[in-house]
Amino acid sequence: MVPVISFVGRSNVGKTTVLEKVVGELKSRGYRVAVIKHDSHGFEMDQPGKDTWRLAQAGSDVVILSSAVKMAMIKKPACELSLDRLISMAEDVDIIITEGFKTGDKPKIEVFRSDVSDKLLTIDRGLVALVTDRHFDIETPQFAFEDARGIADFIEKNYLKQTGRRDISLRINCNDIGLNTFVKDAMIKTITGMISSLHGTEDARDIKIEIRLPTTPPEF
Amino acid sequence: MVPVISFVGRSNVGKTTVLEKVVGELKSRGYRVAVIKHDSHGFEMDQPGKDTWRLAQAGSDVVILSSAVKMAMIKKPACELSLDRLISMAEDVDIIITEGFKTGDKPKIEVFRSDVSDKLLTIDRGLVALVTDRHFDIETPQFAFEDARGIADFIEKNYLKQTGRRDISLRINCNDIGLNTFVKDAMIKTITGMISSLHGTEDARDIKIEIRLPTTPPEF
Repeated sequence: MVPVISFVGRSNVGKTTVLEKVVGELKSRGYRVAVIKHDSHGFEMDQPGKDTWRLAQAGSDVVILSSAVKMAMIKKPACELSLDRLISMAEDVDIIITEGFKTGDKPKIEVFRSDVSDKLLTIDRGLVALVTDRHFDIETPQFAFEDARGIADFIEKNYLKQTGRRDISLRINCNDIGLNTFVKDAMIKTITGMISSLHGTEDARDIKIEIRLPTTPPEF
Repeated sequence: MVPVISFVGRSNVGKTTVLEKVVGELKSRGYRVAVIKHDSHGFEMDQPGKDTWRLAQAGSDVVILSSAVKMAMIKKPACELSLDRLISMAEDVDIIITEGFKTGDKPKIEVFRSDVSDKLLTIDRGLVALVTDRHFDIETPQFAFEDARGIADFIEKNYLKQTGRRDISLRINCNDIGLNTFVKDAMIKTITGMISSLHGTEDARDIKIEIRLPTTPPEF
């Protein structure tokens, strides 16, 4: 799957500013980048009076606006959207950077500023690097706030240049189903084998299958 | 899959206003509704200065903002997003209504106003009903602009109360792969059979599988 790295840190520490620079640096190196931002306060993204706002106000659970080069979506999800679900929505990118999601299981870069706190938030919880205004006496790599290039090098080296691994995810209704290595391998082989004789599947890299079943399960 | 109906018509005919009322009516009947709006002029959905706008400006191809009850996404897609792809992004709704997409293959309700044009846009191209300010001498059901209830009845009767059919879609890289009935049936049975012994798959209605393969294809 696409590599994911989480930028975490206390409020007002400057996460978005750091991300802005790192995203710019990764883009200049030719990568497609997604950012997923956790917002615990709720938000208003759309502009009142516009058509999309009117349709959302009328009660639409999902409003999608699409042009040739851009799409926008606002959704009141039926299922709570886990980080993994949000990640699968990003699709078609080389790397996903999250802002927030400090309790998630992704590798974390903590953004730290001494005038906001005197303690790290994430030590021993998946911390892989720091963006900080003071040195910590730990072995974790540490970068200055203005060192977007160094941070991008770190991400590129450790997360972007890994050789592709094959993987599979399975979601039933609203739930991600855990699969062990044996089951994953069996499913990947069965499905890729099954579709291999269809036209248009020769260079398959991303395979997406969606099945919808009637409420009363059919006989197998 | 989720039923889809397209509201089409010339510019400024009042499509959004009709949709607003129809969505409200369907919501009051307890359905989860998605609206997909085609915008040929390009659009600016986000508000300058906000964090999401800053991250999009920095070059992010995808920006997702997520809170407990809402998510918003802005995407510059790598693959051109077909109506069918947009439909699959809506997910978890009972019906999808599109505004625009007059060349699509979905059933169409044309919104017609005599001071905008004197000819229908869609006759013989999937027209199933009209919302109009004058009567046409054709057999297609016709509704007045203010008759949101009648339009909702029509949609409910013809598209929402159908018994669930099972279906499968397959997407490889950026392409939707056409599947005939035999292949669909074989794939659905193989996959539902394969996952049936996993925990958490008992009441499967929506199954989503994503596989990522290395660029050099593995041996099977």
